[in-house]
Amino acid sequence: MDIREILSHCDHTLLKQTAVWEDVRRLCDEGLAFGTASVCISPCYVARAAEYLNGRLPVCTVIGFPNGSSTAAVKCFEAAEAIGDGADELDMVANIGWIKAGMFREVRDEIGEVRRICGSRILKVIIETCLLTEEEKTEMCRVVSDAGADYIKTSTGFSAGGATFGDVRLLREHCPPQLRIKAAGGISTLEDAETFLSLGADRLGTSRLIKLAKEQLRANPQDLLQGG
Amino acid sequence: MDIREILSHCDHTLLKQTAVWEDVRRLCDEGLAFGTASVCISPCYVARAAEYLNGRLPVCTVIGFPNGSSTAAVKCFEAAEAIGDGADELDMVANIGWIKAGMFREVRDEIGEVRRICGSRILKVIIETCLLTEEEKTEMCRVVSDAGADYIKTSTGFSAGGATFGDVRLLREHCPPQLRIKAAGGISTLEDAETFLSLGADRLGTSRLIKLAKEQLRANPQDLLQGG
Repeated sequence: MDIREILSHCDHTLLKQTAVWEDVRRLCDEGLAFGTASVCISPCYVARAAEYLNGRLPVCTVIGFPNGSSTAAVKCFEAAEAIGDGADELDMVANIGWIKAGMFREVRDEIGEVRRICGSRILKVIIETCLLTEEEKTEMCRVVSDAGADYIKTSTGFSAGGATFGDVRLLREHCPPQLRIKAAGGISTLEDAETFLSLGADRLGTSRLIKLAKEQLRANPQDLLQGG
Repeated sequence: MDIREILSHCDHTLLKQTAVWEDVRRLCDEGLAFGTASVCISPCYVARAAEYLNGRLPVCTVIGFPNGSSTAAVKCFEAAEAIGDGADELDMVANIGWIKAGMFREVRDEIGEVRRICGSRILKVIIETCLLTEEEKTEMCRVVSDAGADYIKTSTGFSAGGATFGDVRLLREHCPPQLRIKAAGGISTLEDAETFLSLGADRLGTSRLIKLAKEQLRANPQDLLQGG
């Protein structure tokens, strides 16, 4: 798979608390230059990034992030606010405590409420795989699908661990075909990125791949021009 | 300082994503039994905890937590929702990126908006000291005071580091007397707790002290009865 193909599946991501607008603007420029699927940024920068990008690249942001333990009403308000600010894609965190308590109907209903607010925009649901058992991950494939989300996403990148090959394999096995998979958190090489895609992930959340792609293209500039 | 005195300054805290209601209920029972200042819990459990406690112990919750990078409108909505659910105290996270960019007026205005929603309830502002320079911490003493908050709080417990003696000393030196200090994150011994209080902290955010107090009281039950 060539670099451009890999990057076209990447949500180029900057969610660290210390990010300033100049960092976000640079992220947008990189996303445009390398043709990523989107930029994924904190809610407080959505309005400015959407104005800056002006439709040239989708803006993705996060809801209930990263702990997922705000109320359903707050997640809905945050989703509506993000859409009003110009977000094209929303990555919401499911309520992990409710998953642990087996309150899957409440988890589904909360996702469903945000789904309705999203309309035709893309909704991804982060289940934070590193905190879940195999049974809980499997059950969440059904719950996220039932709630009508577009993607199930492995990780926030702010918990104990990120995406693993095993988790993506498990999600692909248990999700219906129309529910796509986003692997995120700690993806640090182009080889790993390609493996995640080959295992059935459709999107990758990553803050590092552009830097790696830049280095590789500096060494072999024909890769970008010739597609591989 | 006796154990009861230390615990009376503690916000007995459970904010981990995997907490279920039974964990929160146990936290409430411990807070009641040991006379903590409050219980500090995730927003999704505020309504149920407030109903359970029914005024016997203040309920504290968190706003824009832990990254602080939601919009001001979302922080305000979240604050109003938490108060409607029965929260008595709000620990909001300031926008760290704005601090890094020197946008102190925006930081102050956001805190001021949440302050107005809080009314007479206690508002604490988390500045995440481990991410700030000495100059930024010093400036935030002025900003948090100007915005009319009741407390400046060191840490979320979800970033690279928690409260340090040096930070509490610095905050006490630069905050006006009416702005109180909450030290939080990683406070793991009763000795450290006492040191934080002696350095000028008025509240401690901790998930561990009750367990330590229980052990000490099991060994010396007269400590609780005799206050010594």
